[in-house]
Amino acid sequence: MLGNFVYYNPTKLYFGDDAQKHLAEALKDFGPKVLLTYGGGSIKENGIYDEMVKALKEAGKEVIELGGVMPNPTVKKLNEGREIARKNNVDLILAVGGGSTIDYSKGVAASAWYDGDAWDHFWMHFSDPTPDARIIPVGAVLTMAGTGSEMNGGSVITNEETKMKIGKVFDSRLMPKFAILNPKFTYSLPKRQLSAGIFDIMSHLMEQYFSGDDDSTSDYIAEGLMRSLIASSRVAVENPHDYEARSNIMWTATWALNTLVKMGKKQDWMVHMIGQAIGAHTNATHGMTLSAISGPYYRYIMEYGQHRFARFAKVVWEIPAEGKTEKELAIAGIEALEKWIRDIGATSEISSLGVTETMLEGIADATFLGGGYKKLSREDVIEVLRRSL
Amino acid sequence: MLGNFVYYNPTKLYFGDDAQKHLAEALKDFGPKVLLTYGGGSIKENGIYDEMVKALKEAGKEVIELGGVMPNPTVKKLNEGREIARKNNVDLILAVGGGSTIDYSKGVAASAWYDGDAWDHFWMHFSDPTPDARIIPVGAVLTMAGTGSEMNGGSVITNEETKMKIGKVFDSRLMPKFAILNPKFTYSLPKRQLSAGIFDIMSHLMEQYFSGDDDSTSDYIAEGLMRSLIASSRVAVENPHDYEARSNIMWTATWALNTLVKMGKKQDWMVHMIGQAIGAHTNATHGMTLSAISGPYYRYIMEYGQHRFARFAKVVWEIPAEGKTEKELAIAGIEALEKWIRDIGATSEISSLGVTETMLEGIADATFLGGGYKKLSREDVIEVLRRSL
Repeated sequence: MLGNFVYYNPTKLYFGDDAQKHLAEALKDFGPKVLLTYGGGSIKENGIYDEMVKALKEAGKEVIELGGVMPNPTVKKLNEGREIARKNNVDLILAVGGGSTIDYSKGVAASAWYDGDAWDHFWMHFSDPTPDARIIPVGAVLTMAGTGSEMNGGSVITNEETKMKIGKVFDSRLMPKFAILNPKFTYSLPKRQLSAGIFDIMSHLMEQYFSGDDDSTSDYIAEGLMRSLIASSRVAVENPHDYEARSNIMWTATWALNTLVKMGKKQDWMVHMIGQAIGAHTNATHGMTLSAISGPYYRYIMEYGQHRFARFAKVVWEIPAEGKTEKELAIAGIEALEKWIRDIGATSEISSLGVTETMLEGIADATFLGGGYKKLSREDVIEVLRRSL
Repeated sequence: MLGNFVYYNPTKLYFGDDAQKHLAEALKDFGPKVLLTYGGGSIKENGIYDEMVKALKEAGKEVIELGGVMPNPTVKKLNEGREIARKNNVDLILAVGGGSTIDYSKGVAASAWYDGDAWDHFWMHFSDPTPDARIIPVGAVLTMAGTGSEMNGGSVITNEETKMKIGKVFDSRLMPKFAILNPKFTYSLPKRQLSAGIFDIMSHLMEQYFSGDDDSTSDYIAEGLMRSLIASSRVAVENPHDYEARSNIMWTATWALNTLVKMGKKQDWMVHMIGQAIGAHTNATHGMTLSAISGPYYRYIMEYGQHRFARFAKVVWEIPAEGKTEKELAIAGIEALEKWIRDIGATSEISSLGVTETMLEGIADATFLGGGYKKLSREDVIEVLRRSL
């Protein structure tokens, strides 16, 4: 069943192998001062930086630069960006990068003109920006498929001082006004980042899929997206320059987390809650924290939603139901997921991310508790982490 | 593969069994003069009319009424609406009804402030409204699921004088600004309208699905939507008041034709081209014109896209591939479709819609030729029509 909801996704998406040609058109709606945000500088090596700066200059924009956005953007970095955005009174923030850079840019956009402590006010309490806050428009040029940040209003920020808190804001006013999605811009990503991105997408879909017993269109759409992702992932990890596979992965990523597949249904999100706590402790790549705990987590909760796990096996992994009990079918689906995690080169153990036995309690303390088929306690989280070592 | 595209769907959707409570909020963005459009008056019987008028008055709006929009809206009716909209200088057109009323309202919105012959300029040439045209905003309250008009920029108008021409405009500026989607508003529809709406949705998905050989995320999403529709249709035709089924059908309808599943891929649309020509000749219910020709049409083109038809059988209808040639599997899928058309109470013969042998050439002359796996000639259209009698 579909519960009541409001759906509104006004981000304009330019998709294709020449998508950046639309940048000049997209920039027309905004004033002259553009804050250009990016990460560690790989866009300077692959030519994307030069192309974007050229397009901005040709569009008559004044470019203010802010590089060095880290994989798990910190409060300290956020405050640096707020000051720069405010001092320069920027008209647009153009994020060129993956989910971290876009999340970060939305964070700056939401809080630059807020006078108080942004961490306390927004992220710590999962609260929306104040109704009267001036929010700076954000545009995005995507260079890594995975987080879906290009078409949603989410912004995840890490508090590096406490080493144990991540905060998330979600507000439709933070959705990028436009996003440039060129699958070729993801070609130069290291294989490990490709694998992590693919698993992040799959995890977004599973987090929304594994909750509720009802017959809901949202789950059928999620199944279609999972099937497409799995098919394309096998091609892409063998041949990262396969445009068909990379374009499907990029488009799947956008729809996996732009709110469509959660409409009207319950969700889980415990893999992300635990994974983000691991990320805050280890600074490990986000997608790898998710892949490392997913097998043990889903085995742990399977009995509480066995019917759905059996459907997952049958529809998503095309495992024949004949001759199997529902439980056997459900387990076969999780086994297929675990094998696929290895096949695409994602991580299956948190120990490989630097997590040790002594860190488990701290990670559990940093985890927001919740869940779908089963509500997890702190002890449940520790047990899932132990099984993921 | 996904070809290059731009995706932009800013319609705000309020979905649920109390969705109309958001109407006051949605109306805030528009001026005081509202043109209320509707069809044959069923909304006066089921209470929806009273509820909408009350909400409009409470929101301080001046209501100008325009009822009597027919199932295949005509040029004459269009011109009546243009005059009323212009004379009253309306700020918003609120369409309360199904696809015909919404399509009609978009037609009025696009052409009211255009001085020339709207039929010639817009519909006859599939052209967009002139760039400088003043377009009146449209809102929608949906009372029948099927056409997807609530979240797209399409408007189909029939020229009743020539009895053989339908015209279609598509422009993103014609997308409704908001739509109220309450599945319970569809409960009082006659069973025949429910069946026709369900098949219209399926046809929209198939028109976009049956073209192209590539691996495309758009096709996987379409498969998910078709699977959901089929599952819910079987429940809804038995129990029209099953909220779960009716809500899934309504949501599937919106996503079947809001441009998502056509992104980056080839399409077919010959079932609609022929069906609309039948509609212009007989005034038959749109969905029934589609169901009546789909079996013969897909059998006619199957060999040109056999691999896709086999996939349709396997994924959408869950027909086991074992022991079947690809051709046998493909045929089994079309047979399943034909059986489902009967199961849901849709029409399988155009003769039951009033089409006779002598009308076939005229219908073929009124059909815009094209196609996906096979480009149809006038003679092909006549042959498909003959097989559909």
